[in-house]
Amino acid sequence: MLRGKFLTIEGTEGVGKSTNLAFVRDWLQSKGVEVVVTREPGGTPLAEEIRGLLLSKRDESVDETAELLLVFAARAQHLAQVIKPALARGAWVLSDRFTDATYAYQGGGRGLSKATITQLEVLVQGELRPDLTLILDIDVELGLNRARQRGELDRFESETLSFFERVRSAYKARAAESPGRYSLIDAGQELNQVQADIDKELSHLFTV
Amino acid sequence: MLRGKFLTIEGTEGVGKSTNLAFVRDWLQSKGVEVVVTREPGGTPLAEEIRGLLLSKRDESVDETAELLLVFAARAQHLAQVIKPALARGAWVLSDRFTDATYAYQGGGRGLSKATITQLEVLVQGELRPDLTLILDIDVELGLNRARQRGELDRFESETLSFFERVRSAYKARAAESPGRYSLIDAGQELNQVQADIDKELSHLFTV
Repeated sequence: MLRGKFLTIEGTEGVGKSTNLAFVRDWLQSKGVEVVVTREPGGTPLAEEIRGLLLSKRDESVDETAELLLVFAARAQHLAQVIKPALARGAWVLSDRFTDATYAYQGGGRGLSKATITQLEVLVQGELRPDLTLILDIDVELGLNRARQRGELDRFESETLSFFERVRSAYKARAAESPGRYSLIDAGQELNQVQADIDKELSHLFTV
Repeated sequence: MLRGKFLTIEGTEGVGKSTNLAFVRDWLQSKGVEVVVTREPGGTPLAEEIRGLLLSKRDESVDETAELLLVFAARAQHLAQVIKPALARGAWVLSDRFTDATYAYQGGGRGLSKATITQLEVLVQGELRPDLTLILDIDVELGLNRARQRGELDRFESETLSFFERVRSAYKARAAESPGRYSLIDAGQELNQVQADIDKELSHLFTV
């Protein structure tokens, strides 16, 4: 039996992930595919509780390695409970963020070593990687202004502009290193153009 | 400046950790030492929240790697916020459980590989290890009967007898491998004899 495909959507704050996630879900459903839509950190009750710990602002300074391990703890639970069973039964999985976000936020943003992240990636995922990752790319300030109109900021959204510049660079570097697995989408375009670009990627993936 | 010493107390359920932790604390304070008493998982507000996630019973089955990563996430935070600053200013740290519990519960009990635990130990602790670990050892059934009189059981206390037999064996194996760093105390003896044994260990540590 064919395993389902695993798609992830990434990007910095305010880049339009939710709108485009719904577009991808609808696109796949129109082809008759069972799609499991999920998100990280989160996706199971325990993993969502870990998300709560990660995003909540606190007086205590959060150790960077503790943050990294919480991210991967939530991911291990998400894989075991949701992602792997879905792929195994032939469903497609569409996740709002996955491990590329860890390379971007904890690696690029916080400056943790890529080797450490890779060590945990192998421990938690074995050889499982997304089949396609759409990286929505936008000018950081423009995205932050959009995100900040949504209301109170979480612990990550409250980071500095230079933090998000490093996150964006890390995403772009990953896309440049493995063009086959990533599609870097210019999310600063008009929405119909963004979605035309996504449509092209999905059509390609769907025929291979 | 001399770094303080790092003591940990370990053992299966109902072994008398709390009583003997207080004995060790009082013993050290009587020598004029500043003692920071703490526990794992926990020891900081965030780490105590992680403890809550680990101990609470839930419908969702908890992935073993997720559990292991949560334990080390709490430990990273505990080290950064409490243990390292205390040792650096010359205080002694006395912790109710530490990484030996991970080797015993997640390694021995759950069957996770020692190599994986060691990989995370090195990531989170670097070279930091306790100066002395007191392992309180008792017949598993006797200890469980004591523990179960304390009230409702948490997710670990609800494990099977054979789980705790594996935890106990793992503790004993660690004590046998590095006798210099561990003291295996027969906690099935009368309390005054248990404390005489502990007194001997502390006197030795205090003079080196």
